[in-house]
Amino acid sequence: MKEIPERLQKQMAFLLEADKEKFITRQTFLSDGKRRENDAEHAWHLALMALILGEYANEKIDLLRVVSMVLIHDLVEIYAGDTFAYDEEGKKTQRQREQAAADRLFAMLPEDQEHHLRGLWEEFEAAVTPEAAFARTMDNLQPTMLNAATGGIAWTEHKTKLSSVLERQRLTPVGSQTLWELCRDAYLTPAVQAGKIIDDLANNSAESEGSR
Amino acid sequence: MKEIPERLQKQMAFLLEADKEKFITRQTFLSDGKRRENDAEHAWHLALMALILGEYANEKIDLLRVVSMVLIHDLVEIYAGDTFAYDEEGKKTQRQREQAAADRLFAMLPEDQEHHLRGLWEEFEAAVTPEAAFARTMDNLQPTMLNAATGGIAWTEHKTKLSSVLERQRLTPVGSQTLWELCRDAYLTPAVQAGKIIDDLANNSAESEGSR
Repeated sequence: MKEIPERLQKQMAFLLEADKEKFITRQTFLSDGKRRENDAEHAWHLALMALILGEYANEKIDLLRVVSMVLIHDLVEIYAGDTFAYDEEGKKTQRQREQAAADRLFAMLPEDQEHHLRGLWEEFEAAVTPEAAFARTMDNLQPTMLNAATGGIAWTEHKTKLSSVLERQRLTPVGSQTLWELCRDAYLTPAVQAGKIIDDLANNSAESEGSR
Repeated sequence: MKEIPERLQKQMAFLLEADKEKFITRQTFLSDGKRRENDAEHAWHLALMALILGEYANEKIDLLRVVSMVLIHDLVEIYAGDTFAYDEEGKKTQRQREQAAADRLFAMLPEDQEHHLRGLWEEFEAAVTPEAAFARTMDNLQPTMLNAATGGIAWTEHKTKLSSVLERQRLTPVGSQTLWELCRDAYLTPAVQAGKIIDDLANNSAESEGSR
């Protein structure tokens, strides 16, 4: 029986720790509406979506880079927890909590892989490269698709406002104009019309009308 | 509001149907031993493992091809259900059930993508190419790692025999000799020594001794 090399031991320790991503629950419900999704399921779904929808990226993308990014983008939540997209209090400390988590988690890997994965995660966060922009499009489109499929349970539960949704979806067209139009026309507009998303923009406009 | 193109409609219908992979429960327990893993979590874990462990493949591999393969390899179980690796009855009809499921599921996609994904799935099943062999190594290593981490709950529960484990692991060294040795030395041998896996090979050998 050979000694297991230190490099491989570190990689396996990281991969076992990564299992905890399956314990992190998100706000989004699965398509049957019976339970909430966890981070690992979400990451898998994004990766599958990237494989199928890559042709709609605004710019030419390296698909392996996109898939790698979405597979690891939520790993920091193992230590930092999930911050709901519309939780304004949680979002104030999110960046700091997630940076500390990234320091701790990626340091489990051999140094070259620590730098590679940390780089991919920072790239996803910065959302500047075509790959990161498209990865963010996946990350915005997937929960919208699921929320629409469940009749908007998560939206209704959180009294979600259209202004918050549009702020959250700000980067969706940067990765893919086609998929943003799909997101808007197939999922968001019907949800607003059905009252699942509160149309606070229409109200503002109505108030302006009234104050004239 | 633009009409959504038929191609994109088909892709999104497939991606929503794929959500059901999260409902398919496997026999393996998560690392905390509290609940069983589902197929989507499993596929995510394999993809992450492929990214980290690709350097140990026996042959040069196209990593995007491996990752694509592991992401989709269990989709057919949405219709065919999970067949436990050591369920000999279930395995008799597995191939036929999974072929029918593949016919139905991949047909939801535009024809070019139907052929691409069906091809990847058949390639994984045949386990002949270096990419498929390495994908199978991931598919064998990951549950072994988790079973070991939980103190072998799933092995004990199913009274798993070493001969069955070795039969199941037959292809592991074909994808990666290094990872097979890890699997054997770090996970399987200790589990046999602790009595979590029944050593039917040692018994046979002892019986032979006795009958001499």
